[in-house]
Amino acid sequence: MEPKPIPDIVVGRLPLYLRALQRMSQQGRKVTSSQELGEWLGISAAQIRKDLSQFGEFGKQGTGYNIEFLVENLRQILKVDRVWDVAIVGAGDIGSALARYQGLSERGFRITMIFDSDPTKIGAQVGQFTILDSAAMVDSISHAGVQVAMLAVPAAQAQQAADELVKAGVRAILNYAPINLTVPEGVWVQYTDPVTHLQRMTYYLD
Amino acid sequence: MEPKPIPDIVVGRLPLYLRALQRMSQQGRKVTSSQELGEWLGISAAQIRKDLSQFGEFGKQGTGYNIEFLVENLRQILKVDRVWDVAIVGAGDIGSALARYQGLSERGFRITMIFDSDPTKIGAQVGQFTILDSAAMVDSISHAGVQVAMLAVPAAQAQQAADELVKAGVRAILNYAPINLTVPEGVWVQYTDPVTHLQRMTYYLD
Repeated sequence: MEPKPIPDIVVGRLPLYLRALQRMSQQGRKVTSSQELGEWLGISAAQIRKDLSQFGEFGKQGTGYNIEFLVENLRQILKVDRVWDVAIVGAGDIGSALARYQGLSERGFRITMIFDSDPTKIGAQVGQFTILDSAAMVDSISHAGVQVAMLAVPAAQAQQAADELVKAGVRAILNYAPINLTVPEGVWVQYTDPVTHLQRMTYYLD
Repeated sequence: MEPKPIPDIVVGRLPLYLRALQRMSQQGRKVTSSQELGEWLGISAAQIRKDLSQFGEFGKQGTGYNIEFLVENLRQILKVDRVWDVAIVGAGDIGSALARYQGLSERGFRITMIFDSDPTKIGAQVGQFTILDSAAMVDSISHAGVQVAMLAVPAAQAQQAADELVKAGVRAILNYAPINLTVPEGVWVQYTDPVTHLQRMTYYLD
């Protein structure tokens, strides 16, 4: 029996649930409810119950959710019960900050390489990594079988870099460059741009 | 006549339209269409027309949108026809990268101060800024009248820092800490966490 595809908007909420539950777990908590999760996240309890029910039976009426059990299930659903190798493209301020970012490994990701095309940067150290030459990127990534990349190059170079990532076998790109990318079917792109977030808020200010 | 409030999901797409249009403008383009914008952004042409029509009459049937005119209008709607001062809280890797980030000023924002509580960081230079003591944050921000902040402190300190920002008069917080914040009515929070973006994509990988 082929399950119905889950809407991407629902998929997009699962990492927020997982993050909140893992934080509760770190605080020594064992059980929560859709009401409490909803208050943490600003999402209605009904929405949370509906989202989770699409993946299975995680809570019992009246007793709530077992946090550890739900964490394990969400990790499996999101496929972060394994660790994904991640390549960073661009060793500017954002790429370098990402290379030093601590919060990745316990959440399913491990930076393994960082690339730049600037000859003055290639060979330099950032965190625990030596910056590699972008010219060797397709070979290095495809040889290592890396499927996830963070793209932190200037906007003018982002599409070409994305094309190379796709050629190298990358299937998920988190794009920090402030432009939209064109990628073939089967490759996923997420965007993160501080300015679009800020502008979404200034709309409401006076 | 009181206009109907625009759904936040629509507001959230306006910065993407603005960014794409500004890029077209940089390329010397004068006119575009909802079809072309839609292809750039992966959003349907009908959705774009519907979104924009909520704010006015920007295009003519058959002749498309005048890019400069639409850019000016979107900048006014999003209130980035002015420049907002922005405070950064946390001078770790992410905060420091943001302090050095170039792409803000022509898009409506200007970093004016950065704070940290670490005595070894206070007084040090990051980009063009001297790192200020968080203990003076409420005073400094309220005195300067800063309304927008980027929060890049560890998760365990984020709620307290947010409380202080609110006390100082900040009304828009872009939160890089991987936790959800509780803020009073009238204060806006946007979240950005690379891991939640990555997890939303690994769901689809094998």
